[in-house]
Amino acid sequence: MLPQNGVEALCQALPFRGGASLCRQPEPALASPSVKPVPTEDSEEFSMALARRAFIAGGAHTQYLGKGHPDFIWKRHPDFGKRENPTLEDTLQEAVDGCLADTGVNPADIDRLYIGNFVGELFVNQGHLGSALAGTHPDFAFKPAARLEGACASGGLALLAGLDAIAAGADLVLVAGVEIQTTASARTGGDYLARASHYRRQRSLDDFTFPAMFARRIKAYGERYGLTDEDLAHFAVKAYANANLNPLAHMHSKTCTFEHAKSAHDRNPNFLGNEEFRPYLKVTDCSQVSDGASVLLLASEAGIAKLGRTLSDTVEIAGRGHAVDSLYTDGDMTELTTVRHATHQAMVDAGISVGDLDIAEVHDCFTIAELMSYEAIGLADKGQGAALAASGATALDGKVPVNTGGGLIGFGHPVGATGVKQPLELFRQMKGRCGDYQVGRPLTWGLTSNMGGDDKTVVSFAVRNHQ
Amino acid sequence: MLPQNGVEALCQALPFRGGASLCRQPEPALASPSVKPVPTEDSEEFSMALARRAFIAGGAHTQYLGKGHPDFIWKRHPDFGKRENPTLEDTLQEAVDGCLADTGVNPADIDRLYIGNFVGELFVNQGHLGSALAGTHPDFAFKPAARLEGACASGGLALLAGLDAIAAGADLVLVAGVEIQTTASARTGGDYLARASHYRRQRSLDDFTFPAMFARRIKAYGERYGLTDEDLAHFAVKAYANANLNPLAHMHSKTCTFEHAKSAHDRNPNFLGNEEFRPYLKVTDCSQVSDGASVLLLASEAGIAKLGRTLSDTVEIAGRGHAVDSLYTDGDMTELTTVRHATHQAMVDAGISVGDLDIAEVHDCFTIAELMSYEAIGLADKGQGAALAASGATALDGKVPVNTGGGLIGFGHPVGATGVKQPLELFRQMKGRCGDYQVGRPLTWGLTSNMGGDDKTVVSFAVRNHQ
Repeated sequence: MLPQNGVEALCQALPFRGGASLCRQPEPALASPSVKPVPTEDSEEFSMALARRAFIAGGAHTQYLGKGHPDFIWKRHPDFGKRENPTLEDTLQEAVDGCLADTGVNPADIDRLYIGNFVGELFVNQGHLGSALAGTHPDFAFKPAARLEGACASGGLALLAGLDAIAAGADLVLVAGVEIQTTASARTGGDYLARASHYRRQRSLDDFTFPAMFARRIKAYGERYGLTDEDLAHFAVKAYANANLNPLAHMHSKTCTFEHAKSAHDRNPNFLGNEEFRPYLKVTDCSQVSDGASVLLLASEAGIAKLGRTLSDTVEIAGRGHAVDSLYTDGDMTELTTVRHATHQAMVDAGISVGDLDIAEVHDCFTIAELMSYEAIGLADKGQGAALAASGATALDGKVPVNTGGGLIGFGHPVGATGVKQPLELFRQMKGRCGDYQVGRPLTWGLTSNMGGDDKTVVSFAVRNHQ
Repeated sequence: MLPQNGVEALCQALPFRGGASLCRQPEPALASPSVKPVPTEDSEEFSMALARRAFIAGGAHTQYLGKGHPDFIWKRHPDFGKRENPTLEDTLQEAVDGCLADTGVNPADIDRLYIGNFVGELFVNQGHLGSALAGTHPDFAFKPAARLEGACASGGLALLAGLDAIAAGADLVLVAGVEIQTTASARTGGDYLARASHYRRQRSLDDFTFPAMFARRIKAYGERYGLTDEDLAHFAVKAYANANLNPLAHMHSKTCTFEHAKSAHDRNPNFLGNEEFRPYLKVTDCSQVSDGASVLLLASEAGIAKLGRTLSDTVEIAGRGHAVDSLYTDGDMTELTTVRHATHQAMVDAGISVGDLDIAEVHDCFTIAELMSYEAIGLADKGQGAALAASGATALDGKVPVNTGGGLIGFGHPVGATGVKQPLELFRQMKGRCGDYQVGRPLTWGLTSNMGGDDKTVVSFAVRNHQ
């Protein structure tokens, strides 16, 4: 484990790609220890939950696909009418097959299966996805399988269920996340996704309910701390820059310059109908409507042995956090309180502090959500999230790279998959599998933050590399 | 634990209500030991899962409500236009409040919360119900909460998640199930519920996809074993008779005579559009489209102590089964293979055999499903399920009462609630709380079987009374 100032120490000491010059100055200090972890009684149960240690042994993503990707079929695509985009069944199958191949697991040895999905019932008329997951391999017949749903944190909940399965005695657990969203128009999709809000109370906010809810946060945050379009542009530019290096990213071939993102214009409009919030959100502030799946294999120590592997082939989920706030009330619009609870739980559970983090995956459903996540986790002090991004400290070559594959804005956001993708991305980074977007130095500790709704369901994992 | 022939022994030995005369003759023998439990390797993991014992400490149901209940508001109700039926939020709140009151638990002491729901996204435009559950009490803020979905087995999956939480170190876990279904027409509801089938492949079977799937089973079973409308009528008559004694039942005030149920007629029509299957299913063969919620409190041994209670106030979930088959294929139409796997897992896990059962709650989404459940569990041999029902052995005063509160046909079937309702009903029966439908003798062992889709996701619990 690294000392509190471990990130700085690493940055100076290690011969990583680009060298010390990448530690750009000036930049804000990482948050002071005044950001307190949540009370320890909250994390007691989690410590017990990990009495049996759990590890990620491998996994696979599909291509994340949607408008803006050259392979995505839509009316202006030359293959339109000739072939279809992959179905949910296709997408899930591909990721499961990829995970089986990556880990070499004997499917018959898998004890349980979990799947995260938000609204298959609406986008593809399909619920009951535990049974679909059980159908991805003949050896899965009659095994325990279940679907977890917590809006955009569905994948994180599936992984938590997998960790409980390990705690309860399972040795090998397959955890999938999947979403297909491109079957509906953006406006219809906005209505479907509004099921993550308190629909009865909040749907009327805008046709695009969630973009409006986060525009409201941009407004509130700006009123308290000051915030410009340029501030938010740094997050979008980083996301696309990382995605441009990631062949699986939805936005792999779309570039986003600072010039493009830094203001509203015809090609980057303020698109909300709600007049109060319209000026605060642009297209570049938003994550993507993506199709995709991510699947990983969890293993206990006995499970790793069954795979014929060793600890050094894995990363450990050394800490977990799970906090849920009431759907019926609005929290503080200038911070992600539930993210703070869950991420600090995960760090306390793992016995680390924010200064130990080498890398993170946070839930950038909107640029403001990444900004507020920095502050909630403690990577930046309150009001300093934008400055941290602008400094480059969270870029691929920064002190604590965040969302190295492009995050929800660049990699894409098939909502049920995101919470599985995040820890699998930490695994891939820690094991040097990220190709052009590989962080060029050893990584010991990573953190994920997966958020459902407007700071309502949050799942966080503290992930430790075994070398 | 009772010997294999424990039910017969109890029937002779115990001074229960109605006495030995209730052991009607003639009746088929309970199934022979030739019905093998599933291989023990399937249950290994489950045994480990229960390393920390888990108990039901209490709970509550709301009224199960829908068409046919005098309190249900619809166009012919005198209050139509003056007041509304309870919302999902109302229904969930009432059941949570009921559970808190029944158990006396300090809400702040609850470690985690789970909720089963099938398609809130469609009937009430609301997903993300973990966050709704977190909103039912201020002390639940920032606690872990999640929604499980596995079609009509969603409630069972939520309870399994609760058991894993106990295994992982939690002491008190609240488990809810809820569904609101009366917001849509029967035909639209049929489309929504078809998300539990493989929609792409099976939706076209009939406007009422699931009724058609079970009519197909009636046809296939009849072709193999012989089956009459009269055979199935016994199940419907039992369900309504039990419901008539249960004030919370949807069909509390609706009677169903054998004469009414034994054939198709104007008031009991064959309603399917599919001509091949239409003759096989009548209205009385179907469970109800109900609104309702059930909530129970799970406790570890330490949790029971926190409640200031003793083991004798609880029932133990001594065995669990969870089996899921592929959504993409059709199984044997004459048996419930997945039910067999899950229920035998639960019994093996608890160390009991079918002869030990004093009571059961099975998934009578259709009369044929209860019949096939008898055979899958081993209460009847293959081809003998109807005879078992006709003998009265599963009636309230029979050897092994099944669905004493009316089951899905009589009590009602708010799909996400059913899998929570079943074990809570066993608790209520074992603790003598069932009023007019109380079984009049001590009950030691009970079994539940909760099925999602057409024998796809099955969750089963072996429940032991502590006296």
